[in-house]
Amino acid sequence: MTEVISQRRIRAADTALRERARAVIPGGMYGHLSVNALPAEYPQFYQRAEAAHVWDVDGNEYVDFMCSFGPNLLGHKHPKVEQAAAAQAALGNTMSGPGPVMVELAELLVGRVAHADWAIFAKNGTDATTVCLMVARAATGRPTVLAAAGAYHGAVPWFSHRPDGVTAQDRANFRYYRFNDIASVERAVEEAGGDVAAIIVSPLRHDAGFDQEMVRPEFARQLRELCDRIGAALIMDEVRAGFRLHDGGSWEPIGVAPDLSAWSKAIANGYPLAAILGSARYAEAAARIFVTGSFWFQSVPMAAAVATITAIREESAVPAMIRIGALLREGLEREAAEAGVQISQTGPVQVPNLSFPGDENYAQAFAFCAAAADHGVIFHPRHNWFLSAAHTESDVERALVAARAGFRAVRERFGRQ
Amino acid sequence: MTEVISQRRIRAADTALRERARAVIPGGMYGHLSVNALPAEYPQFYQRAEAAHVWDVDGNEYVDFMCSFGPNLLGHKHPKVEQAAAAQAALGNTMSGPGPVMVELAELLVGRVAHADWAIFAKNGTDATTVCLMVARAATGRPTVLAAAGAYHGAVPWFSHRPDGVTAQDRANFRYYRFNDIASVERAVEEAGGDVAAIIVSPLRHDAGFDQEMVRPEFARQLRELCDRIGAALIMDEVRAGFRLHDGGSWEPIGVAPDLSAWSKAIANGYPLAAILGSARYAEAAARIFVTGSFWFQSVPMAAAVATITAIREESAVPAMIRIGALLREGLEREAAEAGVQISQTGPVQVPNLSFPGDENYAQAFAFCAAAADHGVIFHPRHNWFLSAAHTESDVERALVAARAGFRAVRERFGRQ
Repeated sequence: MTEVISQRRIRAADTALRERARAVIPGGMYGHLSVNALPAEYPQFYQRAEAAHVWDVDGNEYVDFMCSFGPNLLGHKHPKVEQAAAAQAALGNTMSGPGPVMVELAELLVGRVAHADWAIFAKNGTDATTVCLMVARAATGRPTVLAAAGAYHGAVPWFSHRPDGVTAQDRANFRYYRFNDIASVERAVEEAGGDVAAIIVSPLRHDAGFDQEMVRPEFARQLRELCDRIGAALIMDEVRAGFRLHDGGSWEPIGVAPDLSAWSKAIANGYPLAAILGSARYAEAAARIFVTGSFWFQSVPMAAAVATITAIREESAVPAMIRIGALLREGLEREAAEAGVQISQTGPVQVPNLSFPGDENYAQAFAFCAAAADHGVIFHPRHNWFLSAAHTESDVERALVAARAGFRAVRERFGRQ
Repeated sequence: MTEVISQRRIRAADTALRERARAVIPGGMYGHLSVNALPAEYPQFYQRAEAAHVWDVDGNEYVDFMCSFGPNLLGHKHPKVEQAAAAQAALGNTMSGPGPVMVELAELLVGRVAHADWAIFAKNGTDATTVCLMVARAATGRPTVLAAAGAYHGAVPWFSHRPDGVTAQDRANFRYYRFNDIASVERAVEEAGGDVAAIIVSPLRHDAGFDQEMVRPEFARQLRELCDRIGAALIMDEVRAGFRLHDGGSWEPIGVAPDLSAWSKAIANGYPLAAILGSARYAEAAARIFVTGSFWFQSVPMAAAVATITAIREESAVPAMIRIGALLREGLEREAAEAGVQISQTGPVQVPNLSFPGDENYAQAFAFCAAAADHGVIFHPRHNWFLSAAHTESDVERALVAARAGFRAVRERFGRQ
């Protein structure tokens, strides 16, 4: 076992930028990419990115297991994606109408995702989930939507986890159930007096701050049956996990088809795009609602999406992520055992989550991740990680060296368990 | 006066694409770029764009006075914007954190827009208006927002003009007033029982389908005083007009400062970006709300925005648009008079609107715009147009030749008025 040397890094440029940011950005930074609540070892500002590697503004290099929180699936600057985007950019991007690539992309998605008969494109994952709700409400004429308690479907008043700036009316049409618990869904339907437009669900439970939970196929089938029985739309929120579990819809391997699905993050390998896919039954309602955005019709992200979705299958990106993810999971298990530290690894290996059982306030996770960042590896203490198809065995080796330092730090601060 | 020859164009590729689109996109197309409700002479799909010109998929070229409905302010493929975007793209775009350019852009906007002490970035104009509402509600602890009846502040349930997919609760916290009518605002405040978080307003009345209306400076001042008196935030929706009226905030020339402002469309000359600007008083609330998006921190659009905002001032883009816009307005007035057709031109010359008084169902506007499209000029029959700094005198000459054909078509179908 090689000795791990602490590699505390220079942070001068990052520190200076944070200082400037505090003067012109509320709180210095906001949203899911803020490191305000993370250990000081995390950089806030990034200079550049290649494949699965990123460089902070002080020139420190990292193997990045957050993959921009999802968008980076094939690796930064994937040649085929960049080539497709550049070819489209040479023609046009934000024009007074869409380009032919919009039709090509819609056809590709309809061919790729089993439940989909049509596509609408947008920019944010939140646009996609919001449009799904609108389509379901327009189709059913009902207001109520059921969602899993604690799930994340967007940073909008109707779903934000923080109460500030949110009114009671924003949530008035929601009822909540427990993931994987069909009885709780039935109860929520009853509470709603049967007035349910839709049930929204993620392919797995991936609530930040909690261990992940795979869907029980029986629960998925029961949800489908329930929706059919009450005439509600089953909405799949694929924003976070889409195309990482499967190269079509995430529940296709268990044979359950949603009516509507919301996609974003990885579908254009980092180019800004979201998609709403739906079955034919919902096309009429989808044509009736009015939704739009200044950049929803851009051709460059659509060209990038065509290249990305094609490459995901042609380059067997999902099996590649599973293979590397399994190596990482096994290695982390081994390193933790060797350090005498208890860990819990949950969720699919390509969308991994690591936690420390009984870890109060994520203190052990913080110690682990701080040491890993200091050793040039970006993990996250409270949010699932993301593998890309560009992560290599050597990236995993580096990750395990960093993890070893992390587990030692945990053992030293919190003792052998 | 040169004789205008009809130039009915080949539409085979566009027709074929529309056919394919109808199979995989609800209604064949959606949102503000759908030509479903426009004359058949409009192309739906665009192949490429340069400066103020666009080419449809059949190779027909047009002078485009819609400018992508706003985003194209400096002209497509403006060299300095493209160079800045390319330089940033060579480094990184969608990373696990923002780049230094985020701070640079926030500083630039705070220096450029008088009322702004801080910036938050997002993707859609609707993100920006929604975040403004959230900040105002978080700051005041009140739910109600006043908006001008008929105004457009986003295609979201809380403001969409079409009822489909929208619930009563989505609108429960809104009260409406008439633009330029302070008594109607006072009444709305009373109706709300004083419980007002914010009053949202556009720099001018630019509701689609209506003549535009410039703000009366007295109304702007009264709004400001009213907001101060009741402790509500004055929110300026700059999404559509921002940086076309002035190279800072649109009401700076009349000396009225909002508390919060929402920007998008033109701020990065077509790259996807939105910004929320606010005064220091609202910084604490802005830091408290949770808002975010997968692509909100992208560095390429921010680099494009820095170059765009710099060029707007350095290249005197606003005076350039005003000069060319005035030529267009005068020319249209002349051509209409010569054809014996009554028209109404309203709003700023750089955000022009043309209508035909008493024009039932926009029939005259449709005839006019159809003929113009056939002559290679994109106008719009129901929505304001947009000038760019790339429109030339020769573009205006072409526009006037097309307009002559348009006015003749109106006169022939609807008679001399």
